[in-house]
Amino acid sequence: MLTDQQILRIPGPSPIPPSVARAMSQPMIGHRGQSTSDMIADIRPKLKKVFGTQQEVMILTGSGTAGLETAVVNAVAPGEEVAVIVTGAFGDRFVKICKAYGLTTHIFEVGWGTAANPQKVKEFLKEKPLVTAVFSTFCETSTGVLNPIKELAAAIKEVSDALVIVDGVSCVAGTATEMDEWGIDIVVTGSQKAFMLPAGLAFIAASERAWEKVNANPQPRFYLDLAKHRDNILKDTTPFTPALSILFGLQQVLELLEEEGLENVYARHTLMMNMTRAAFKALGVPLLTTDADASPTVTAVKPEDFDPETFRKVMKTEFNLELAGGQQELAKKIFRIGHMGYCSPADMLQAIATMEIGIVKAGKNIELGTGVRAAQQIFLDEGKSAQ
Amino acid sequence: MLTDQQILRIPGPSPIPPSVARAMSQPMIGHRGQSTSDMIADIRPKLKKVFGTQQEVMILTGSGTAGLETAVVNAVAPGEEVAVIVTGAFGDRFVKICKAYGLTTHIFEVGWGTAANPQKVKEFLKEKPLVTAVFSTFCETSTGVLNPIKELAAAIKEVSDALVIVDGVSCVAGTATEMDEWGIDIVVTGSQKAFMLPAGLAFIAASERAWEKVNANPQPRFYLDLAKHRDNILKDTTPFTPALSILFGLQQVLELLEEEGLENVYARHTLMMNMTRAAFKALGVPLLTTDADASPTVTAVKPEDFDPETFRKVMKTEFNLELAGGQQELAKKIFRIGHMGYCSPADMLQAIATMEIGIVKAGKNIELGTGVRAAQQIFLDEGKSAQ
Repeated sequence: MLTDQQILRIPGPSPIPPSVARAMSQPMIGHRGQSTSDMIADIRPKLKKVFGTQQEVMILTGSGTAGLETAVVNAVAPGEEVAVIVTGAFGDRFVKICKAYGLTTHIFEVGWGTAANPQKVKEFLKEKPLVTAVFSTFCETSTGVLNPIKELAAAIKEVSDALVIVDGVSCVAGTATEMDEWGIDIVVTGSQKAFMLPAGLAFIAASERAWEKVNANPQPRFYLDLAKHRDNILKDTTPFTPALSILFGLQQVLELLEEEGLENVYARHTLMMNMTRAAFKALGVPLLTTDADASPTVTAVKPEDFDPETFRKVMKTEFNLELAGGQQELAKKIFRIGHMGYCSPADMLQAIATMEIGIVKAGKNIELGTGVRAAQQIFLDEGKSAQ
Repeated sequence: MLTDQQILRIPGPSPIPPSVARAMSQPMIGHRGQSTSDMIADIRPKLKKVFGTQQEVMILTGSGTAGLETAVVNAVAPGEEVAVIVTGAFGDRFVKICKAYGLTTHIFEVGWGTAANPQKVKEFLKEKPLVTAVFSTFCETSTGVLNPIKELAAAIKEVSDALVIVDGVSCVAGTATEMDEWGIDIVVTGSQKAFMLPAGLAFIAASERAWEKVNANPQPRFYLDLAKHRDNILKDTTPFTPALSILFGLQQVLELLEEEGLENVYARHTLMMNMTRAAFKALGVPLLTTDADASPTVTAVKPEDFDPETFRKVMKTEFNLELAGGQQELAKKIFRIGHMGYCSPADMLQAIATMEIGIVKAGKNIELGTGVRAAQQIFLDEGKSAQ
């Protein structure tokens, strides 16, 4: 096997575009110098567009979890009550953080593989008047569900003054995010998914309403203190040493997103989702989620007549193509395909064509080419709008 | 479209493996220092294996053409007669070089797309007793023909004492080359094809018999003087400044070839050829060459009911996938797919799946998935031996 080829189709980290890898290999510079400030000044307005906000988007050096914890420690005061909409492993992450801070945490649990229903969330919150913040996950990476964040935010606001806080880690920059228009108070995301970067940066933006809360919040915090980050980014700098090479990469990623056009980037992700889903439907292999609940960045597949773990091993052995398995309650029951960031319809055709071979080798009898044909047809039908 | 993705499927230059790109980005070092000598000492025995020779393989800084000219000026004395077996544009290159040196050049012309027949070459040479060197092309890149070099060398030797000189540019390292065993006197190749490197290095080895001729040859030469190169490489150095970064890359390429195993590398190329050919046969799109004449590194396709130039434009526009067109007399009549070096069966499935869409968009009515299915079946049938 071609030993130096690795085909990464997991839902993050995602592959790095060559021009971004080149940008990241620039020599180190002083992070307090003018060049770094010029770079941050270039990044700021472009990052706002990706978040769909007029607010500043702060850049923290840390993983997505650091970003989630930043949301919790800045937006919630000690002793307050919060609600978390849990649709999978990453909703659960919010619960763990909130509990670590001793917050009274109300959990709205949704079966894994299904999106949260705004109406039901509304009913749930009606009976919890003390909740000051509602946490939810935009794309639940563990199941490939895209929660209807716009509708959830609207529903929450009908019955509650709680801040609406969204984990956008695996979909911001891969699907339209309109933080201001949708009335979301805090959006958090990480660098290693649709942002096409290595892990190491977290991005977070807060609404006017959220800032009022943040400014008045007595919760002790230092590295994750949002106000420090805002005061610094307004001066084109960071409060602490930034992961400079990833910042170099971020500048180039934002350049690529502008070059392609955000609308086209989002259409490409939707196209890849539709191609992937059409392929498995044509092959008679069940998808975990419904079309309505599906994420444009990750697809979860729940095979009935072959073992997903055997299948993933075959894909690795035969093609050095990496797919993700299931997490927690879905362990060994599903496999997940990432189609986010530096990934094209051509890459999905490759993934589908190789997965058909993998399915055969995992023991299911299929007509070869069937999934590819369905995906090709989607490309021909929908592709024009995504080009 | 994903702007930073370029899918290079032309018959050279070929894509560079990531570990080779990393190796090439090492800081410059003195090319007369011990580190460079250590590197050349590491390279020498591995390069010999790829050529199938016990002789030294010299490393020139220059393109493949520099390598071909090196063969001519070292192996042929002024005023001598030579023969060139021309099966396409690159056979023609030898003719031009020989004529530039005023050599009496006998041309054995074969229709483009067909391999040279050893028996006929023998008949041809029988009547040309003064010929001192016979030039031929191993893989004719312009047509995707693999000439039967082993059989040609044997046939030539039956009727002539002429040196057998082979242009192996687009196939050495992609198909078995047994220079010593096959009785070939000079093999030349370049870095930018199956060697997975940028253009800039030419590799050349000569038999004992060839060295006798080289040593006695009065033809004026300096940069391309093989004896200078041999005397230096025996001391782990080069007579002139080498393209150092490509040498760094070469060391890593040879490491990768050893890691995969040369037999497996060759089997992978054969598998990719068979997958590609099976796909076009299934789609009813004619191939330029017969199976017997086909090269494992490049496939030429001669469509009858769609325009190859329109098709190539579609592939570039829709997928940023580059294919080559025809050269000289085959211009606008064929397209060529490179499957050499850093290229896997998964890459060929991607190329085939996207080309099916390209064929539809170029105006031919096909059943989508048909070519992919044929290629998948080949992979399942033959793949085991190529892994």
